[in-house]
Amino acid sequence: MRLDDLPTPALVLDRRALQRNVARMQARAKQLGVRLRPHMKTAKSIDVARMILGESGDGITVSTLKEARYFLDHGIHDITYGVGLVPSKLDEAAHLMQGGADLKLITDDVEAAHAASQRGQELGVTFKVMIEIDSGGGRAGLFVDDPALIELGRVLAAGPGTTLHGVLTHAGHSYACPSTNDIVAVAEQERATMVDAAGRLRKAGLACPVVSVGSTPTAMFARNLDGVTEMRPGVFCFMDLFQSQLGVCAPEDIAVSVLASVVGHKSDGSKAMIDAGALALSQDQSLEGFGRVLGKPWKVAKVSQEHGHVYPADPGAKVDPVVGQRVRVLPNHVCMMAAMHEQYHVVDGGDEVVAVWDRCNGW
Amino acid sequence: MRLDDLPTPALVLDRRALQRNVARMQARAKQLGVRLRPHMKTAKSIDVARMILGESGDGITVSTLKEARYFLDHGIHDITYGVGLVPSKLDEAAHLMQGGADLKLITDDVEAAHAASQRGQELGVTFKVMIEIDSGGGRAGLFVDDPALIELGRVLAAGPGTTLHGVLTHAGHSYACPSTNDIVAVAEQERATMVDAAGRLRKAGLACPVVSVGSTPTAMFARNLDGVTEMRPGVFCFMDLFQSQLGVCAPEDIAVSVLASVVGHKSDGSKAMIDAGALALSQDQSLEGFGRVLGKPWKVAKVSQEHGHVYPADPGAKVDPVVGQRVRVLPNHVCMMAAMHEQYHVVDGGDEVVAVWDRCNGW
Repeated sequence: MRLDDLPTPALVLDRRALQRNVARMQARAKQLGVRLRPHMKTAKSIDVARMILGESGDGITVSTLKEARYFLDHGIHDITYGVGLVPSKLDEAAHLMQGGADLKLITDDVEAAHAASQRGQELGVTFKVMIEIDSGGGRAGLFVDDPALIELGRVLAAGPGTTLHGVLTHAGHSYACPSTNDIVAVAEQERATMVDAAGRLRKAGLACPVVSVGSTPTAMFARNLDGVTEMRPGVFCFMDLFQSQLGVCAPEDIAVSVLASVVGHKSDGSKAMIDAGALALSQDQSLEGFGRVLGKPWKVAKVSQEHGHVYPADPGAKVDPVVGQRVRVLPNHVCMMAAMHEQYHVVDGGDEVVAVWDRCNGW
Repeated sequence: MRLDDLPTPALVLDRRALQRNVARMQARAKQLGVRLRPHMKTAKSIDVARMILGESGDGITVSTLKEARYFLDHGIHDITYGVGLVPSKLDEAAHLMQGGADLKLITDDVEAAHAASQRGQELGVTFKVMIEIDSGGGRAGLFVDDPALIELGRVLAAGPGTTLHGVLTHAGHSYACPSTNDIVAVAEQERATMVDAAGRLRKAGLACPVVSVGSTPTAMFARNLDGVTEMRPGVFCFMDLFQSQLGVCAPEDIAVSVLASVVGHKSDGSKAMIDAGALALSQDQSLEGFGRVLGKPWKVAKVSQEHGHVYPADPGAKVDPVVGQRVRVLPNHVCMMAAMHEQYHVVDGGDEVVAVWDRCNGW
């Protein structure tokens, strides 16, 4: 089967670009002396996970317990669930552990830690819990100088149904950096904050074996990760226009696109409509609107549910397709675009579909 | 089962609000003297379709051929596919017709019409095709004074594999109206344009039996639809914050929400994190950010993939939940929010889950 034979819209994955991206991040982890624990929220695919992990048997990060179940069912045991624990999910977490998962949870909340410890004891499991730290992103997590850090560490370490496994952060603010020098600075802030957090816990007599950081930009530009034990980038495997605009990758490193058909166009070349809209492309916006058309001076400037509105990407360009013509739209944010689809149509640089890989979407 | 027992995030549908919304639109169609052909792209649910159609046996509109297949399999035959036809989808369209669908296609392109006619002849079917008109939204469709209108009508009427079924438009620009008076004006522009288009075709000796308009705002505020035969609103069944801000519904008419759990919060009451982010809530933005929390002065001001960042909705408010607390987030654009989920957890105003209804997502 070739791309021209696929119903549109369809998600396309170029395995050659994927392999290059994976090799690059594996080399970065080796160079930095940390373990690569890829965040599988981007790919949600056992095929991609196996490519990244290789023979190492190392672990992964997931964003939902459904992903945890999916990867466990496919033989991956070492799993960090990267969203704060809530009491109502502890039974499923215990169930995963009883099924063989070496599961790690996270929290930034003392009451949630007490609840986890109590429920762990009731269920006969010991939850490994990491403390989430705010390393400057203003997202989730404790500030490193919050007295709750030590209190939370003690609750987790002493509780009958928990252990303190380490500290974890995500420097999401690296995505807003105007230059690679700024990414270098955020990466150092992320590293230093986490080493500080681990040091405070250790000074209080608490073990803190894992120091976990992660974002694709900081993973690519960190000068060193001294004191860090693992990193959890996700988007690196596919890359996207955001990463390209940050200088983290070249446009040709972008491994994922949405194949679409032109369904109409204005006769003056001012606009065309494609059958990939807000649902097929997702809705993160960049300088390229909702996505750039591969190989054409066209961008998706607007989206409605099932329509992409394609305009010239520069003032001199014309949008002059024929109805039925196929285009491929590059993602602004590939985690979101890929999540709109149930499967990848895999190509090796050309237009022959060499494999179909499933994704684990939803909750 | 109660809402507190559901894993989060989860999509919740209040059937009582749905029933009120459906009754209101049914009354509008009756009052306006047009057929209601609901756009099922919003609900993608046979249960909702049956509620809207009742005993009338009237038809529906769909946004994907997958929806057409799903509704046909559930016994609905009269289906308009509201995205411009492309040659590669004609075989599936014919297959649906051979399975009993009374399918209507749309186009604004003469070459596509030729292709449809030729392929229809080859496949032994006659495609019913409507001409898409731009009634001011600048979206898809021909302008009414474009000479291609008559040419396209002749191709469809005379072609061996097509018939001209009518004209169709979607006044999507009604969503941007600053006042209900403006919506009234857009509704009249939509009506008048379509009556004009049908008149031009008829004057050229072409039959134009169906004159189809549709958007929820124009359906609610049109003074009259003289000359129009059907309307195709979609969002009316669920309503959302966009419609409420347009004055099309009251906030209590919003039938759909996403149930989420608090996974963390800042101790000063400035912010909380919930386990419903860009994927669970979708990403249309309004004055309410990415959605308002039902019954609380809180809004989702930012989203990352699986995190909603909840901030005070007014300067005096505090966001002071406990971890694990459940909230319900109202949608900005319910078509998008609902499409992020595989099923509805149906309640009747309270918190008991009385049914689970499937959706037909994807392509």
